[in-house]
Amino acid sequence: MPNWLLPENIADVLPSEARKIEDLRRQMLDNFRLYGYELVMPPLLEYVDSLLAGAGKDTDLRTFKLVDQISGRMLGLRADMTTQVARIDAHLLNRESVTRLCYAGSVLHTRPSGLHATREPLQIGAEIYGHAGLEADAEIQELALASLAMAGFGEVRLDLSHAGLLRSIIADDAAARNDEVALYALLQAKDSPGLAALTAGYAAVTRDALLALPHLYGDVDVLARARDVLPAFPGITKALAELAALAGSALGRAEVAIDLADLRGYQYESGAMFGLYVPGLPNAVARGGRYDHVGEAFGRARPATGFSLDLRELARLLPSAERKHAIRAPWGNAPELREQIAGLRKAGEVVIQSLPGHDDDQDEFECDRVLVLEDSNWILKNLG
Amino acid sequence: MPNWLLPENIADVLPSEARKIEDLRRQMLDNFRLYGYELVMPPLLEYVDSLLAGAGKDTDLRTFKLVDQISGRMLGLRADMTTQVARIDAHLLNRESVTRLCYAGSVLHTRPSGLHATREPLQIGAEIYGHAGLEADAEIQELALASLAMAGFGEVRLDLSHAGLLRSIIADDAAARNDEVALYALLQAKDSPGLAALTAGYAAVTRDALLALPHLYGDVDVLARARDVLPAFPGITKALAELAALAGSALGRAEVAIDLADLRGYQYESGAMFGLYVPGLPNAVARGGRYDHVGEAFGRARPATGFSLDLRELARLLPSAERKHAIRAPWGNAPELREQIAGLRKAGEVVIQSLPGHDDDQDEFECDRVLVLEDSNWILKNLG
Repeated sequence: MPNWLLPENIADVLPSEARKIEDLRRQMLDNFRLYGYELVMPPLLEYVDSLLAGAGKDTDLRTFKLVDQISGRMLGLRADMTTQVARIDAHLLNRESVTRLCYAGSVLHTRPSGLHATREPLQIGAEIYGHAGLEADAEIQELALASLAMAGFGEVRLDLSHAGLLRSIIADDAAARNDEVALYALLQAKDSPGLAALTAGYAAVTRDALLALPHLYGDVDVLARARDVLPAFPGITKALAELAALAGSALGRAEVAIDLADLRGYQYESGAMFGLYVPGLPNAVARGGRYDHVGEAFGRARPATGFSLDLRELARLLPSAERKHAIRAPWGNAPELREQIAGLRKAGEVVIQSLPGHDDDQDEFECDRVLVLEDSNWILKNLG
Repeated sequence: MPNWLLPENIADVLPSEARKIEDLRRQMLDNFRLYGYELVMPPLLEYVDSLLAGAGKDTDLRTFKLVDQISGRMLGLRADMTTQVARIDAHLLNRESVTRLCYAGSVLHTRPSGLHATREPLQIGAEIYGHAGLEADAEIQELALASLAMAGFGEVRLDLSHAGLLRSIIADDAAARNDEVALYALLQAKDSPGLAALTAGYAAVTRDALLALPHLYGDVDVLARARDVLPAFPGITKALAELAALAGSALGRAEVAIDLADLRGYQYESGAMFGLYVPGLPNAVARGGRYDHVGEAFGRARPATGFSLDLRELARLLPSAERKHAIRAPWGNAPELREQIAGLRKAGEVVIQSLPGHDDDQDEFECDRVLVLEDSNWILKNLG
């Protein structure tokens, strides 16, 4: 095997793609900033105890582990940055007030989430800590939609769900609570026969509500249907009202869909959850939601809501950047030439000095002008 | 031990520092682009065989290793991006022409290079492939100096050395060639007594040249002294001429120093080498040089020269960014309010909507204006 082959689902990013990713990264971070989000940079490596505090089994399995030669303790390579940023909010910044944070960095996965998925996503996201009200969820949802609009995605579908529904349905039913993990898996798979079998012995109110969930998907009218079909427990009423408000605030900016059995992230999320979908990709391109309990693992629970996406995946869906025009200049140390080149670069022009014996363009740049000496003056001439 | 403590020499980067690093990263990448350098993004993880091809024992020891669950093979976390970029040039781009590449990304080290050094530097750098002439070295040196000037460092010292000196001195002396590793270590430590002992049995011409090297440091006049003291082997003459040319091209932009026994990087470098020093840091803040043989490990040697630095370390030396002025706006869904806010953000203003019950500023931003409703119009009022 040649020694320049890369591991499966790991790839180099070459210039045209790298430029798209870099541009998108900057646009999104700049936009987060305009909303008042402060940038933080958590480390690639942490003690496993810290990195996986509050995270589920899934994250544990996705996390590469290695031994710290200094402490002898087990380290993990981050597979997700959300708990890291929650840790920063809870203990480093340690503010009582509302805190808005954003981040962008690589994460690593032991196994790809799909056949063609990368094991090294470039995660970018934004989080609000310290506000339990729905306004924070609405701001995060708006920011996620604005990020995709800015990236050039005109058609976006917003899928809404709520972690409070399943929790409320089973809260007062000990038998159902015992089966929480199994129920979550069956609902996630929309396995109605399996669900019917598992819930056969439950109280009727629990069973009927659980069996109704897989059928509660479609446009926003589903919420009215849900109010009729699901029991009027306070937690359920609150969850449905929150979804109605969030659906309303996305009106005109995305096609809104409801899928009350879509509980991806349930182990982690505590309130409204959303996924954003764009043409050309079957999976959600961005995911977000409320996760008020994650800070508990660090001894300081704070209300929290946020979203994140993989910049590499998003960039792949965008058309290639156009080649940038550039100026070719000869090699030389003459002060006039150096001054000319410095001036052009200061004005934002790409100037490529031809090294003696070569005059090739860089692939990303198309030299359409050349700097030449005529009558002791350096002037720009068009090429071709 | 609290579960939010980080491993030694690993740290979170908090907002004001993160902003400095991000700004510096963009400035440098944008400047690289103005010179025609194309951005690439090599992966964090590679097979160890590939990652360490052409790298020395030092890099091997600094590299975290882990097992790939998919292939069962050993993976390494990159401790340096230079060989990765050389691999991309050699096999992915596979151009015959001159190729200019740049990169910015985190690398990880098993152990810190010093007591307070981070184990997660943010490496940024630029490389030219395909041109063996000194013009490429001069361009890289200029780019490195321009990068520090742009970052605000007025006083920079350029230390020059050349890997060809030691190579030429021992080339025709089998005894000395056998001791190459020991000679390199003694020269690096400027251990003249040790050097005298080791070289006692060598031919006089070799011994005298080796014993002279530790004394050949100082300003550019050292090069004239070196021409007198060192034997006139073609490799030595060429190396000294190259250093004189590079010292000349840095004139007026940096204080130039020569240190012919400074062979850091010797195992890897093949020609002129440099280090850049700024006040406040004893170690070189940037290092560069020619390394024509690295591509050989991938079956395609190409002339190569480049430089890199740690953005985190560089940013730490800079003053904190000033707090950015921002506008506080109330929460609300009124279309006029939303329009006002969108307009202000479009104009580059940071607008922070106060979530109900909170009106704290984000630490990075200072709200000096507030958006208020007066006579049915949203207007900006100064605060304080």
